[in-house]
Formats: sequence, structure tokens, C-alpha cells
Amino acid sequence: MSTPLQLPDETHDPRLRSWVESANRPGVDHPIQNLPFGRFRAAGAGDDQAWRLGVAIGDQILDLGATGLVERADMNALMALPADARRALRRRLSAGLSAGSAEQAAWSRALLPQAQAEMALPCRIGDYTDFYTSVHHATNVGRLFRPDAPLLPNYKWLPIGYHGRASSIGLGGGPLRRPSGQLKAPDAAAPVLGQSRRLDYEAELGWFVGPGNALGEPIGIESAEAHLFGVALFNDWSARDLQGWEYQPLGPFLSKNFASSLSPWVVTLEALTPFRRPFERAPEDPQPLPYLDSPQQRAQGAFAITLEVLLQTERMRAEGRPAQRLSLTDSQRAAYWTPAQMVAHHTVNGCNLQPGDLLGSGTLSGPGPDEAGSLLELSVGGQRPLQLPGGERRSFLEDGDRLTLRGWCEREGAVRIGLGEVSATVVG
Amino acid sequence: MSTPLQLPDETHDPRLRSWVESANRPGVDHPIQNLPFGRFRAAGAGDDQAWRLGVAIGDQILDLGATGLVERADMNALMALPADARRALRRRLSAGLSAGSAEQAAWSRALLPQAQAEMALPCRIGDYTDFYTSVHHATNVGRLFRPDAPLLPNYKWLPIGYHGRASSIGLGGGPLRRPSGQLKAPDAAAPVLGQSRRLDYEAELGWFVGPGNALGEPIGIESAEAHLFGVALFNDWSARDLQGWEYQPLGPFLSKNFASSLSPWVVTLEALTPFRRPFERAPEDPQPLPYLDSPQQRAQGAFAITLEVLLQTERMRAEGRPAQRLSLTDSQRAAYWTPAQMVAHHTVNGCNLQPGDLLGSGTLSGPGPDEAGSLLELSVGGQRPLQLPGGERRSFLEDGDRLTLRGWCEREGAVRIGLGEVSATVVG
Repeated sequence: MSTPLQLPDETHDPRLRSWVESANRPGVDHPIQNLPFGRFRAAGAGDDQAWRLGVAIGDQILDLGATGLVERADMNALMALPADARRALRRRLSAGLSAGSAEQAAWSRALLPQAQAEMALPCRIGDYTDFYTSVHHATNVGRLFRPDAPLLPNYKWLPIGYHGRASSIGLGGGPLRRPSGQLKAPDAAAPVLGQSRRLDYEAELGWFVGPGNALGEPIGIESAEAHLFGVALFNDWSARDLQGWEYQPLGPFLSKNFASSLSPWVVTLEALTPFRRPFERAPEDPQPLPYLDSPQQRAQGAFAITLEVLLQTERMRAEGRPAQRLSLTDSQRAAYWTPAQMVAHHTVNGCNLQPGDLLGSGTLSGPGPDEAGSLLELSVGGQRPLQLPGGERRSFLEDGDRLTLRGWCEREGAVRIGLGEVSATVVG
Repeated sequence: MSTPLQLPDETHDPRLRSWVESANRPGVDHPIQNLPFGRFRAAGAGDDQAWRLGVAIGDQILDLGATGLVERADMNALMALPADARRALRRRLSAGLSAGSAEQAAWSRALLPQAQAEMALPCRIGDYTDFYTSVHHATNVGRLFRPDAPLLPNYKWLPIGYHGRASSIGLGGGPLRRPSGQLKAPDAAAPVLGQSRRLDYEAELGWFVGPGNALGEPIGIESAEAHLFGVALFNDWSARDLQGWEYQPLGPFLSKNFASSLSPWVVTLEALTPFRRPFERAPEDPQPLPYLDSPQQRAQGAFAITLEVLLQTERMRAEGRPAQRLSLTDSQRAAYWTPAQMVAHHTVNGCNLQPGDLLGSGTLSGPGPDEAGSLLELSVGGQRPLQLPGGERRSFLEDGDRLTLRGWCEREGAVRIGLGEVSATVVG
């Protein structure tokens, strides 16, 4: 079953304004054209208070339960809705939050300021898969190990992916504990147990699966996007020294599964619609096999999302210095494979995806030197430490470093929407 | 917190007999000394019927809900019980099912014949990790790729593991669909999409996590076993041709995640107690780092479980031939790392395990040529096809092949207990 290409509609109209005044300020993350979903409760309400489903609007959260538009506070059930039903829900929310709406009186009582809310992971994540979609990241990392042949022969034929750990995915905001594990110096006879000295971040996007597929039934490329719900920022913390020693022959394990951090608001595919960019292979690159390719796939392309990485050390905070930008990346310039191709490839063998599953993009590094999504790349494996304002240097993260990812979409003729941010401070 | 080494107690007494007569027959899988847990409902009761928790006894299932010993039919909650509470439950079940018990009248009304039951996965599996604990398997496979250095330098220092796909784990019994994926012949310029021609099984044990640990809090080797609930048979189906093309640099993905099969009854660590065997490194092997080693760890060792693999082709069935044994393996001879070491290693970086998580042992191959747990090894990468009764040959699985794993524990002075079996028939 093929799904028609979604085009911008009245919910994306740049003239649309909300009766929630904070949503109309220029440059906000959550204008009425965004409407991302999250789980929240009143801060300090206590652990016995249930999580509720909400939509971010301006600096407020609309409690979906109070609108009567959803039956249960179950994000996985909401994600399981067919794309059509999800679009209908978006239109209802957009209309109800628009200036002059008849819902204003009732819905204004269902608002909670974001500053007074505590957020939870958006949903129960059954399985988490991390892809490796940035050809520039794969090349940068490959060059450290194989200078003559950085990119492996399979890279341009299939979206490389592997399974990650779901249990240790959390929201940022708090401390990020430096993990311990086996470390082996190249010239040492034996490994030792110790704290990682090469702690790194990876700037990624996390795509949430919407409706799933039954085991044994692949999702065709034409309908692949209909199985995606939305996107959040994702930091796949990595301990490079643990990784170097453990990863042969089955891939990364303890170097990754100690923590990953998501931003709390899931921006839907519908909200991303104005930010599509068509997608064509360069003439020198192989055309994908038919299960990963179609005229519609090329026309719908992928979504251009800007990712910014910021670092503020403990000393910079003490000295009142602002966070320093480490990189700025355009997700679509970075990624060789689209979210739809990730879905089609993941299921071509019959593997079943379930609502709420998370598909990481892999580190999104663009072609330029200031577009790399990890310190491993920015410091060339630690050989060229970064110079920070105030005189500090960084090859990898030090205790007290606060690392922040931010994301947004903007283009001429559309209202900017934000993915918000996710950050954490390294503790030893 | 260190946990005392569990010794056989009155629940393992070989003289113990049950009022469920079928449990007293010699050689049964489920004597009163076993008491494995599973989820069941009456066959044909319909999808709206809830799953119930049961204990297998002889050819019957005791409905735990009817005994009043558990509050809810939630296996994950039962698995989360501290080891002490679980042992107390075992003693109550053992006493109630013993010949002469006062419970006989009430509990005999809570029995359902296994032949009339439909089984579900024992629990909700949050995360599934597959280890690679058999040094013989790692050597056999490594030799195919690196004849001069089959075993990688990290192997004898850490239990290699990687994350697998939880959503596609099921019970056997039905068809196993041959997966499609990218195949690339060594001399081909480009891959093609096609059905796997090198479909294989992997004979493993699946260890279920009991009580979990909080993120950031490693589980010490001394208390690691207290975080394990029990074990089932596990077949990690593998498509070797997909694997060869996709697995660099991040490990297996679509070659594994199309299906894995568990046996339905989880044999608890308590039931395995009489089958412990102490564990020492050979003099030429490095002593494990302290977080993987302790005097108690060596004394408690691991559990000796026998694994048998059987194959029956379509033609063998048509000709009335019985299934042919492909291998017979002792899990402890096969594994270089114990279940406790898997737990300690998995959490040394702070990764959180949760009740119901599954830890695969990896393919359990023993040192002998008839002890290999996969066709990849038995046929030496397809170079030496196996001869089957009736004249057929097999390098990998063909459509119509029925593959069965069986497992049991037996030793002098203890009553044999069985893990049952898990099987599936390959369909194209």
C-alpha cells in the first residue's frame, strides 16, 4: 500500500496564530505550527501521580486528557494510530488552539506552564535500533582506523544499523555519570578496570515508530513514512576507550549502553512536512536497490533539521562564559539514508517494528570540519584537542562539562519549529 | 552485598514424590524437583482470555492464581521478587505438590493438562542481550575468517556481548520463515535482494533476569546470581549470507533479528542447584579481572546443562525416519564465562537490567566435532556438508527442515530435570 506524499496544509499556514500568546512570539520552539507530543505531570506532584499526555504550545502544555481527544494517557497507543487518524488529531488540535477558537474557554483551563511541569520519556521504548546514516561520520571514523579505505564496501548499499539498549535511555537534564569498564592501552599486556577517559557524545536524531508491522511482513518503501510518528533529539553517549577494546567482533556494547539521552518533545512527521527536501543520489553513487528506492521516495526525500552542539565547562560556568558551539549540522546534508529507507531496510527481512520503538539516525556529521557530531571526529581521535574560550582544551568530555544538543527547522516561507534541547553534565 | 552459595535442600531430595502421578515417572522433564514457570491458557479459549502463570508438574500445569501464592498473573513481577522470596515460593510449591500434602484436594482442581494448554512467551522481554560465551564457537567461527588467529585478543578478558532484538523473540512450534535481505556474492559487483540461502540455527541458553539494578549501580560478582531468575532453551536463528555482507563495522543486524525462539518453561536457578560444577581457569588462561572473579564465583561455578540438536527433513518425515541428532553439548564445557560473569560484566558500566530481560549465552559449542551448536561450524562454513540418513546432505537449513533443541540436567544422586524443547520448521 502506497501512501500519498504529505504536503503542507492549513496547520502549517504561517499566518496562523494561537490564543496562547506565547506561541506567537517569533522564534519560539513551539508555535501552533509545531504541536509536539510529550508526557508530563505537575512538578513536585509526587511519584504516585500518573503521567499525562500533552502538546507543547508556546511556553505551555495542553493536557490532552482534558480535551477529550484521546481516550487514555498512553503514548504508545497514540503512536499506533494510523497516519490518517494522527493527521485528523493534529487538525483538531490546531483548530482548537487557533486564535478565535470556540475551544479557548475550555482548553485554557487545561494548560500547565512548561516551567511547572516534570517530563517523562515520551513513551515506552520496546526496542531501540541505532543506524549509521551519516556518510561523513562513517568516513571520519573509518579514516582513523583505515586511512586508505575509510568507507566499507557495504556502506552505500545498505543502511548500517545495530541494536542498542532501551532500558538506559532517559531524558537529559541531570548528571551523566562517567562509566567504568575495561580499558587496555595499546602497549599494555592486560586490560584494567577503570573509568572511561575518552567519554564522548553523539549528536543524533531519534525517530519514533508509529504503527508497527506484523512479524514476517516487510514495510515497502512507499508506505514506510506512514510507520513513523515523529522525531526528538538524541545523544548516544559513547566511551571510546571501552569501545576500542570490546567491539570486535560483534559491535559496541558497554561503550554505549550506560546511558542515552532524548529530548522530551516528539515533533511529528506532520509538523516536519514543510521542511522536506527531495533526495537524489550523486551520479558517482550507486542507485539503491528497488526496495530502498522509488520515485516517491526521491520526491519526498528527507527532512532538513538543524542540529547544534554546545559545550560549557565548569570553569566557563564559574567565569560566566556562555556555552561554546562545537558544531552546526544540517541533518539532510549529513545523512546518506532517509528515515523511510531505515524503516524499509529494518523490515525487509520480516523484523517487526512496534509503536514507540526508537530508530537512531547515528551521529549526524556534515561534510565540513565544523559539522562533525562527536568529539572523536572534532579532535581527530584526540590528536587535535579543541581550543575553548578561556584557554581550556578538550579532546573528550571532562567532569563538569555540560553538553547540550539543540535542534530546529527553518526555511523561507514557513514558521520555524524547534525540537528543543537535551543536555547533561558529566560527573565522575 | 554478597549472596550465600545456594546448596541443594529438601526441594531437591531424590526421594520426593508428587501426588501428580505423571511427575513420578522416570526421565520426565517436570518432576517435583523441577517446578519451572510459564504462562498459559486453555487451548482454544480465544484471544480475549488472559494468560495465567503456571508451574509445570509431570504432564500437568498448576495454575498459580488458584493457589493463592501469587497476587497477579504478571511474570515480570514474579521475576522481580528477591531471591529469598522466590526460594520461599519454591518451598511452598514443592510442599503443596508433594505426596500426602494437605493442598492436594484444592490444588488438584487447579491443574490443566499440558496437552490442553496454549503457551505464551514467559514474560515481557524488555531488552535482549546476546553473549558469545563459548570459546569453542568463537574459535570455530574465527578460524573460518582468520585461520592463523581465530580468537581475538579481548576474548579471554571480557564476556563479549551485543544487543539483540526483543520484538521478534517468540515461542517455537510453528513455521520459521526464511528471511530476505541483501546478498552479495564475493565476486559480484553489487548485492541483490533475495532469500537467504545460508539459513542456520544457534543452540543457546536464554537466561532471564530476576531483580534488576538501578541505572549507575553495578552488580558485584558475589551477588550476580541473585539477579538471575532462570533459564530456557533459545535458538538464535541466523542468516549467514546476510550476516557476512552487513555486519561490518557494527555487528549482526538483519541476519539475526527476523526471529529467535524460546522454549516455554523457565527452569529456575533453584532447580539447577544440584547441577552446579565449580569453575577454574586453565593454567594457560588469564585470571579474570577482580570484578569478574571471586572465591565464591569459582566455587559456585556454573550449571551443567546438556543441549541436544535434532534435524528432521521433509523427506525424512515422509519416509518415516526419526530426527537425526546433529550435536550434543554440555553447556559448561562449552562456556568460557558463567551466567554470573555475564551479569557482572553487563552492569559494570552502570547499565540497568530489568526483570524479564533475556541474556543469551551465545552458541554453545563444545570442544569436540559433534558438539558444535550451529551448521556453520558443523559444515565448516558450508565446505563439508553433513550426510543425513536417507542420503540427503545439508550445509545449511532447507525448506521443510524441522530443527529441534532439547535440554536437560542429570547427574548421579539427583533427579533429572528437563528444559523441554523448542522447534520450528523452515518455510520458504
